Amino acid sequence: MAPIVGLLTDFGLRDHYVGAVKGSVLSICPEAVLVDVVHELPAYDVLEGAFALAAAYAAFPAGTVFVAVVDPGVGSSRRGLALEAGGYRFVGPDNGLLGLVMAEHDERRLHALSNGKLFRPQVASTFHARDVFGPVAGHLANGVPIDAVGPPVLDPVPLPLAPVRQVAPDEWEAHVIHVDRFGNLTSNLSAAQLLRIAQSAGQGDVVVKVESVTLPLARTYSDVPAGDPCALVGSSGLLEVAVNQGDAARVLGAGRGAPVRVRAVAPVL
Amino acid sequence: MAPIVGLLTDFGLRDHYVGAVKGSVLSICPEAVLVDVVHELPAYDVLEGAFALAAAYAAFPAGTVFVAVVDPGVGSSRRGLALEAGGYRFVGPDNGLLGLVMAEHDERRLHALSNGKLFRPQVASTFHARDVFGPVAGHLANGVPIDAVGPPVLDPVPLPLAPVRQVAPDEWEAHVIHVDRFGNLTSNLSAAQLLRIAQSAGQGDVVVKVESVTLPLARTYSDVPAGDPCALVGSSGLLEVAVNQGDAARVLGAGRGAPVRVRAVAPVL
Amino acid sequence: MAPIVGLLTDFGLRDHYVGAVKGSVLSICPEAVLVDVVHELPAYDVLEGAFALAAAYAAFPAGTVFVAVVDPGVGSSRRGLALEAGGYRFVGPDNGLLGLVMAEHDERRLHALSNGKLFRPQVASTFHARDVFGPVAGHLANGVPIDAVGPPVLDPVPLPLAPVRQVAPDEWEAHVIHVDRFGNLTSNLSAAQLLRIAQSAGQGDVVVKVESVTLPLARTYSDVPAGDPCALVGSSGLLEVAVNQGDAARVLGAGRGAPVRVRAVAPVL
Repeated sequence: MAPIVGLLTDFGLRDHYVGAVKGSVLSICPEAVLVDVVHELPAYDVLEGAFALAAAYAAFPAGTVFVAVVDPGVGSSRRGLALEAGGYRFVGPDNGLLGLVMAEHDERRLHALSNGKLFRPQVASTFHARDVFGPVAGHLANGVPIDAVGPPVLDPVPLPLAPVRQVAPDEWEAHVIHVDRFGNLTSNLSAAQLLRIAQSAGQGDVVVKVESVTLPLARTYSDVPAGDPCALVGSSGLLEVAVNQGDAARVLGAGRGAPVRVRAVAPVL
Repeated sequence: MAPIVGLLTDFGLRDHYVGAVKGSVLSICPEAVLVDVVHELPAYDVLEGAFALAAAYAAFPAGTVFVAVVDPGVGSSRRGLALEAGGYRFVGPDNGLLGLVMAEHDERRLHALSNGKLFRPQVASTFHARDVFGPVAGHLANGVPIDAVGPPVLDPVPLPLAPVRQVAPDEWEAHVIHVDRFGNLTSNLSAAQLLRIAQSAGQGDVVVKVESVTLPLARTYSDVPAGDPCALVGSSGLLEVAVNQGDAARVLGAGRGAPVRVRAVAPVL
Repeated sequence: MAPIVGLLTDFGLRDHYVGAVKGSVLSICPEAVLVDVVHELPAYDVLEGAFALAAAYAAFPAGTVFVAVVDPGVGSSRRGLALEAGGYRFVGPDNGLLGLVMAEHDERRLHALSNGKLFRPQVASTFHARDVFGPVAGHLANGVPIDAVGPPVLDPVPLPLAPVRQVAPDEWEAHVIHVDRFGNLTSNLSAAQLLRIAQSAGQGDVVVKVESVTLPLARTYSDVPAGDPCALVGSSGLLEVAVNQGDAARVLGAGRGAPVRVRAVAPVL
């Protein structure tokens, strides 16, 4: 079976950069099956990249190698990383981009990219995706073991993401971490956290509030009338705010970073 | 020969959704060759999706399986479909998206997606592309016969497209159904219909009118001077209005839905 | 090893055109590995296409076939070309698009596309990418020799690009030929030309000026503080103007076509 290499960058699709990275992977591993995950991430936006990678990787077959590049520090002294976790491998800069994937896996192997034999012969200081990350991913896809890339890393740069915090005995605050093209707002509150809040409410309700609008918890968009907002567990396993057949970001006037309050309401006796 | 799976969605390229669908197809059929048809369809726009699918599929080798998803009703009770027609197979929601392809093939097999064994183990109600359509397409690519997906469907939801209608003894009205990135306006009048109108004109002319501008029928863009508008049979086999090396939508002030009048003019004796 | 076919167009990603071209390549060469280089080139912009192709092709494995289409003259009498150079092959219109690649290779084979047996049976005059260039690329990928496509061409249409010119004994003028999504400005001054200018300065400096701002020569973005502009040899081997973690086009108010002056400053004695 041909190895699969998934690609995620903030390079956009107007330039030749993604094409060049693909060429560099194929130059090392010609039989690689290249799969675009996403390239239109906002420029330099490590958090959006970390979210997209975490949301997408588990849909791929085990063994897939991902090249993930959102890299404002390219050419500086920031390290490159190779990560093995959950049966997948990931290559990218050490800036938090792999942080959400790492957080899901206690058992993982993390190595710094220092073995220049796995790079392109000439490394441009401004294009490590083509000259370092892509070739290393090609070698991993060829079966090179992860510890061949360089020494283990114990202190990766953390992702600068405010965690969900409890703001009252019965209330938690998360934030919108992604607005998709349909205007759906994805928060960083997981289905597991939502379940715990629901359990604390006993037979009561869970209420979600965004920009002072209170939203019902639904199972799917069409549980509410077209045009109405709701909250639900989205396809990434995170609390999402949506408008059935509409644009929640526009309807609610909410964007990336907006607070999402979740409150357990005790049952009325 | 590896099976080909073409992908057409309105998911856009800013989110991880397309990547996740690709992963889900490869998880079922790892040797599938994935080919993007288009993903930047206007959100929720079933008609644009139907047009793009109908315009593109016949350029692919017979045997190609298409996943087509423009799905405002995801998670509701709308059915999923698998279609076999013209040597191709198609998987998508039952909302008219497959309508233009179906209209081209009297001989076809159409089945509802009900066999959950072909889905992902966990189906998110908001992401059937990843959890239902993609996996079913993977199984079809693996050689699963179409009737394994579920029972036959005799009453698919029709595409809400106004047909070409005769508005005078010598005049027909079509509509712009797609504006491409170059500003070319594609109508729903087929080459065959145009030929019949031309024949009704005998030795006379055929005149095309858009936004009260009368256009000559040309063979190709460069038949008229640069900057001039013309009508011609486009590459999809439909009447198209274009400006040579320019933007017809802007020049004519016409967009999606604009009426396109076609008139047979009797020969001057 | 499966043949690789790279695709570069100005078709954008909102329409079905790229998908149809892919189908047409696969219809001739089903085992081709299709790789998108870039499709969001500005419409009709031959120079941008020539730059992107020249910047990307060498990252691919030798043997790769490229379909390159920016083709304002489609359907007119302009020729189609097949080029063999540096171990790669290229198919596209004769309008300068292949000009930068050709300029890099004295040894090359260039042929006109005239052998209709290699085209689709029906050629739409408005879609040669699908009906001519794609199929010819498929045949080349299948091993058809380049001289089977048609007669040799000795007079390809040149790329309309103003060359770097000397404007004073110690000063040269190049131009911005591409602005990438990060706002980096790529000029047409090569690393080799920059080296010659630096050598002419002896122990002195090289100074780069854009929109009356004088910029230091750096090795990489992070050699200057975040937010500061610099000039450097970019990943395409051309002089580039950038702002560390910022947008040089916006900061400097410079765009495509802006002059880039490079001056050798004699050492202070």
